[in-house]
Amino acid sequence: MAVDQLIELISRSKNPTVVGLDPRPEYIPPALMDAALAQKGETLEAVSDAYFLFNKGLIDALCDIVPAVKLQSACYEMLGPDGMRCLRDSALYAREQGLFVIVDAKRGDIGSTAEAYSAAFLGKVRVGSAELEAFPADALTINPYLGSDNLAPFLEDCKAYDKMVFVLCKTSNRSSVEVQELPVAGRPLYRVIAEQCARAGDALMGTQGYSSVGVVIGATHPGHLQQLRRRYPELFFLVPGYGAQGGAAEDVAGAFDKYGRGAIVNNSRGILCAWQKDDPARWAEAARQKALEMRDALRGVISMV
Amino acid sequence: MAVDQLIELISRSKNPTVVGLDPRPEYIPPALMDAALAQKGETLEAVSDAYFLFNKGLIDALCDIVPAVKLQSACYEMLGPDGMRCLRDSALYAREQGLFVIVDAKRGDIGSTAEAYSAAFLGKVRVGSAELEAFPADALTINPYLGSDNLAPFLEDCKAYDKMVFVLCKTSNRSSVEVQELPVAGRPLYRVIAEQCARAGDALMGTQGYSSVGVVIGATHPGHLQQLRRRYPELFFLVPGYGAQGGAAEDVAGAFDKYGRGAIVNNSRGILCAWQKDDPARWAEAARQKALEMRDALRGVISMV
Repeated sequence: MAVDQLIELISRSKNPTVVGLDPRPEYIPPALMDAALAQKGETLEAVSDAYFLFNKGLIDALCDIVPAVKLQSACYEMLGPDGMRCLRDSALYAREQGLFVIVDAKRGDIGSTAEAYSAAFLGKVRVGSAELEAFPADALTINPYLGSDNLAPFLEDCKAYDKMVFVLCKTSNRSSVEVQELPVAGRPLYRVIAEQCARAGDALMGTQGYSSVGVVIGATHPGHLQQLRRRYPELFFLVPGYGAQGGAAEDVAGAFDKYGRGAIVNNSRGILCAWQKDDPARWAEAARQKALEMRDALRGVISMV
Repeated sequence: MAVDQLIELISRSKNPTVVGLDPRPEYIPPALMDAALAQKGETLEAVSDAYFLFNKGLIDALCDIVPAVKLQSACYEMLGPDGMRCLRDSALYAREQGLFVIVDAKRGDIGSTAEAYSAAFLGKVRVGSAELEAFPADALTINPYLGSDNLAPFLEDCKAYDKMVFVLCKTSNRSSVEVQELPVAGRPLYRVIAEQCARAGDALMGTQGYSSVGVVIGATHPGHLQQLRRRYPELFFLVPGYGAQGGAAEDVAGAFDKYGRGAIVNNSRGILCAWQKDDPARWAEAARQKALEMRDALRGVISMV
């Protein structure tokens, strides 16, 4: 099961951190961006090239201390087809370095279309006698608004290709209350979603008590993390919102079980932009330093076996 | 306002149909696919080339009788970066032929990420002194699960660049009941979403009584269409599920106001795959024939002024 592989990678590095490779033009060290623009002009291709070099440098600097990366699809879509090439190449490079690759695309659609999304990220695409990968990922984030016939094709590919999904449950943004906390028969909607995910995960249980149907719950909701951890011991959590969005190590402690398992915490800006308060030429070292600090902060609040 | 432009295009063609350019390998006439594979091998690039030629031929055959096309992003993502090039090029070609271009990507994320998605499809991306378009669309479909700080960046770009969004309200799939019809204070969740969209649309009202914040409501729910039409006269409807998914002209009649305005009905497979029951060599003519039949069926149930 993919979830077991993720747990193993976390346990080996004793670090439940996923680095969010979410580049923006302003996150790229100026020398890197200037060189790309000098070579390819003021084009989306130039920015994509700079993103790839940035990602590659970060992966090289971090792959021995973190278990996983998360690529935010929006950052790459912003650059058109060239950006999508960068997304694919970054995912491939991260996989080559032994990292678990989560693509954060929050996809969701009716069944036949969900099949296509699943083929794009988790499955394979058959062309004649060839079976090809479009955007290779170990896990994909999913939006639950369309219900179970959206989820079904992803779960089939999880089984067939040993992959994992993280379904949006309670996101880290402030306005998540407007829909996700609407009261449904006395409990908030996100609890109904968690329940649906727990049930769907029965068919994808790993050996460590967790299923390959995980959920996204923001670090900005410590109470929810704790409550859902107790209530749904089989749900693995992807926790965004650490660092720049406001979450701290103490806030995410409740996401973990007593063995320090059950969650992985994302940090994007805090690590990617570490160079902005440091020497821009040493951007990779600055990122590594911040990642080590985050690892140690997490180790300080959870006991990992 | 973009919604006025859409209404004008529908009124000029007297045809509230949007053709869903949602190619799948099996939808492509064999001669077209074989030629692409012969040239580029069993690759995603070959399939992307075949998709583009198919889309181009369909646009040429249909642009004088339909006002709009809808491109389902999943079909292109399945082919990786080459597929995304095809999505962009198809959107550009459709726009050049005077069609209103809807990208059906159902995006939704926290505010700063929603900004990136909005820049990708509705806005512009600044690179040095250049302002570039990644995937040019007139309208984008949006998932409401993350609340208003997801919607806000899209609405800003709607205002700045004269674009439109369609927010998922009640989708055409069977399991849409599992989340979208959960009871919130006595009414189904999709009604809460419709309400939120109506409010959000106040700032983007056009001259014909409709706002540029539209909603997606499936043709498979005639009762909901009628009920929401009456209750929210300012919401423009994008109606999928006609044809292959089960909806007929009578089922969608309730989506329109008394002037035959207020909705556009999508048909994908019914038009794209018309050649499968005809002469495969005459695929463009077969698509045109089906599109004319759909236009006439819709004209039969609504009175357009």
